[in-house]
Amino acid sequence: MPQTLHRAHNFNAGPSALPLSVLEKAQAELLDFRGTGMSVMELSHRSAAYDAVHNEAIALLKELMGIPDGYEVLFLQGGASLQFSMIPMNFLQQGQKAAYVMTGSWSEKALKEAKILGVGEAYEAASTKEENYRRIPSIDELKYQPSDAYIHLTSNNTIFGTEWKEYPNTGDVPLIGDMSSDILSTPVDVSKFSMIYAGAQKNLGPSGVTVAIIRKDLLEKANNNIPTMLRYETHAKNNSLYNTPPTFGIYMLGQVLSWVKESGGVEAITKQNVEKANLIYDVIDQSGGFYIGHAESGSRSLMNITFRVKGEELEKQFLVEAKQEGFIGVNGHRSVGGCRASAYNAVPYESCLAFSDFMKKFMAQHG
Amino acid sequence: MPQTLHRAHNFNAGPSALPLSVLEKAQAELLDFRGTGMSVMELSHRSAAYDAVHNEAIALLKELMGIPDGYEVLFLQGGASLQFSMIPMNFLQQGQKAAYVMTGSWSEKALKEAKILGVGEAYEAASTKEENYRRIPSIDELKYQPSDAYIHLTSNNTIFGTEWKEYPNTGDVPLIGDMSSDILSTPVDVSKFSMIYAGAQKNLGPSGVTVAIIRKDLLEKANNNIPTMLRYETHAKNNSLYNTPPTFGIYMLGQVLSWVKESGGVEAITKQNVEKANLIYDVIDQSGGFYIGHAESGSRSLMNITFRVKGEELEKQFLVEAKQEGFIGVNGHRSVGGCRASAYNAVPYESCLAFSDFMKKFMAQHG
Repeated sequence: MPQTLHRAHNFNAGPSALPLSVLEKAQAELLDFRGTGMSVMELSHRSAAYDAVHNEAIALLKELMGIPDGYEVLFLQGGASLQFSMIPMNFLQQGQKAAYVMTGSWSEKALKEAKILGVGEAYEAASTKEENYRRIPSIDELKYQPSDAYIHLTSNNTIFGTEWKEYPNTGDVPLIGDMSSDILSTPVDVSKFSMIYAGAQKNLGPSGVTVAIIRKDLLEKANNNIPTMLRYETHAKNNSLYNTPPTFGIYMLGQVLSWVKESGGVEAITKQNVEKANLIYDVIDQSGGFYIGHAESGSRSLMNITFRVKGEELEKQFLVEAKQEGFIGVNGHRSVGGCRASAYNAVPYESCLAFSDFMKKFMAQHG
Repeated sequence: MPQTLHRAHNFNAGPSALPLSVLEKAQAELLDFRGTGMSVMELSHRSAAYDAVHNEAIALLKELMGIPDGYEVLFLQGGASLQFSMIPMNFLQQGQKAAYVMTGSWSEKALKEAKILGVGEAYEAASTKEENYRRIPSIDELKYQPSDAYIHLTSNNTIFGTEWKEYPNTGDVPLIGDMSSDILSTPVDVSKFSMIYAGAQKNLGPSGVTVAIIRKDLLEKANNNIPTMLRYETHAKNNSLYNTPPTFGIYMLGQVLSWVKESGGVEAITKQNVEKANLIYDVIDQSGGFYIGHAESGSRSLMNITFRVKGEELEKQFLVEAKQEGFIGVNGHRSVGGCRASAYNAVPYESCLAFSDFMKKFMAQHG
C-alpha cells in the first residue's frame, strides 16, 4: 500500500463512503480468503466457507439492531426500487388497502409501484408534498384504517434531508419502513415494524445487496401466487440461498457490521453522527441566512444535510469551489438542485470538520 | 502480496474461478480507484468515473461477442432465476404461447415460472428428460409455432453437462437463450437470438450482476403494465442506471472482459477451453468404463464435465481424495450427485491438467 494513501472527503449520497479499515481488510484477503486459496468472490455459495460469511452477517445485523426473535433477515437484490413492487405483490390483496406516508421522492415511487400493480388500493396516509417535503408529518397527521394491509413510510429522505424522529405505534396494522438511507445510524425499536428494508449502499456496504427484515406473522399472510423470486417466503425458507446471492456484497456488508460493532455499536455511532451533522448544521444556523437549510429543524436528517446558498450564482460558485477543495458529491440531487452533504456512518468526523471549515471560509469570503 | 500465494484448483460451478490477474488488479486499486481517492465501491453511480467503468464494460461485451447494432446490453440483478419471470412478464401476452426447450433443471425452472405467471401459455417445444437430459435435442425435434411469442432454450446445462453445438434459425419467432454457464466460452452468432441473458458468476465475474442482451424490436413489443423494475424498457431507456446498479460487480465484469480481450478474444479462449475439457474427457473415454460420462458425446459441455465413478463406494472415495488433493467443487450438483468439474474460462489449463492426472492416478490405484 502506498504510504501516502489519498482519501477523498466522500459525501456521496450512495454508493458512498466505506470504512477505510474495511476496505483494507477486503484488500488484504482479496486473493486468498481465510486460507482457502480463493477470493471470497470465487467461493461456492454452497460452501462452508461462504456459509460462515453469510450467517455471520445475519447474526451481526440481528445483534446490532436488536432484532427480536420472530423476524427473518433476508439478503435480496434489486435495491429498494424492487422492494416497492415486492411489498404490494406479497402483502396487498384484492379488496385490501395500503397506506403510504408521503415524505419525498422515494415514498412517491413506492406508492406509484403499488398503484401500477393494480391489486388492492394504495392511498396516501399523509403528505408534506405541498411544503416541498421540508418536514415529516406528525404522528397525529397519519390517517389510516385498522383494516389496512400495511402502512408504509420512508424513514429518511435522502433527497430532501428529513428523517423520522419517532415512529408510530400502528397496533395491528403492519408498519413497513424503507430505511435505506439511515439504517444503523441510530437505534430503532424494531418491534414497532413488521418489515424494515434497506439498500446496502449507504450505511451497510456496497450496492447490489438489499436487506429485508420481516416478521414471520407478516410472511405467513403473504400472497403465494406470484413469481418465485419475488416471494419473500422463497428467500426466508432458503436462508437467502434459493439462488446465487451477491456473495461479495454480503461479505462486505458483514465487514461493515463488524466495524460498527468494533466502533462501539449503534449508540456510539449515533453519538458520532450527531457530532458530525452538527458541525454542518451549526454553520447553516449561524450563517444569518447565507446558508439556508431545506429541512425544518425538527425533521432534520443526521445523514443527508440539504441546504441552499443565498443567490444562484454564489451557489454555483460554492459547488465549484467545494469540488476544487476535494469535497465529493456535494451537489444536491438532480431532481431538486442545491447542496447536500451525505454524512453516513462511514464518513469520518474529519471530513465533516473540513467541510464545515470550508463553508465558514466560503462565507467569510463571499458573505 | 505474499510471495507464495496459494491458489486452489477451483472447479466450482458458480460462483467460480476468476482470472488471477483480474483479482490482482482489483486488489491494487481497491483503496484508490484511478486516483479518485475512493474505492470503486465508493463512487457515485452518477459520477463520470463510474460512468466510464459502466460504458467500458458494455462496449467490451459488444466487441467480444460481436453484438450487432440494434441490441441493448443491460446490467440487471437477481440472476437468471429472476429472468425466468421477467421474460414472460415482458414478452408473453394473454392468448399467446411460448415454447420452452427442456434440457435440464434450469429449463424446467424457466418453464415453471412462465406457468406460475398464468399469462399466455407456456409449453414444451422438446424435452430429453426421459433420457435423463444426456443430450440436447436435435434442431429437427423442436416443435413450435410461427405465432409463438418466443422460443426459450438453455445453451449449457450446468447440472447435466450438456451444451448446444448449433442453434436453430427460428425465423420470425424470437429466440431467447439462457447462456449463464457458457457465455463467452465459444463464439455465438448473436443475430440468431432476440435475447441472450446470463448470470455473471460463471464466465463473466462475481455473482450479483445479470447481463441481458435484447434486440430492440423485441423490446418494442414488450408489455408495459408491469412493475417498473421488472420492465426491460426501464433499464434500456436508462442505460441500466434507473436505480443504483451493482457497481463493483460491473467493474469486475469489465475487468474480466478486458482479460478475455488480452487473452486473444473468444476464439483464443475457445481453443483453450477445448484443450482443457479434452484433458478430462480423454481420461473418461480411455478409462474402459471406470469413469462414466453423463452427457452423450455429441452434446458434451466444454464448461461442465459430469461423470460417475464406477461403484458407489469408489465414487465417494474419489470425491474425498479429490478434496484432499485440493480440487474444489468436484461434487456433482446436490440434485443429481456424481462428479462434476466446471472448467470455466478462468480455470487455468494447469488445474485441468492436475485434475486429469489425479483421475489417472486414482484409476491406477483402484481400477
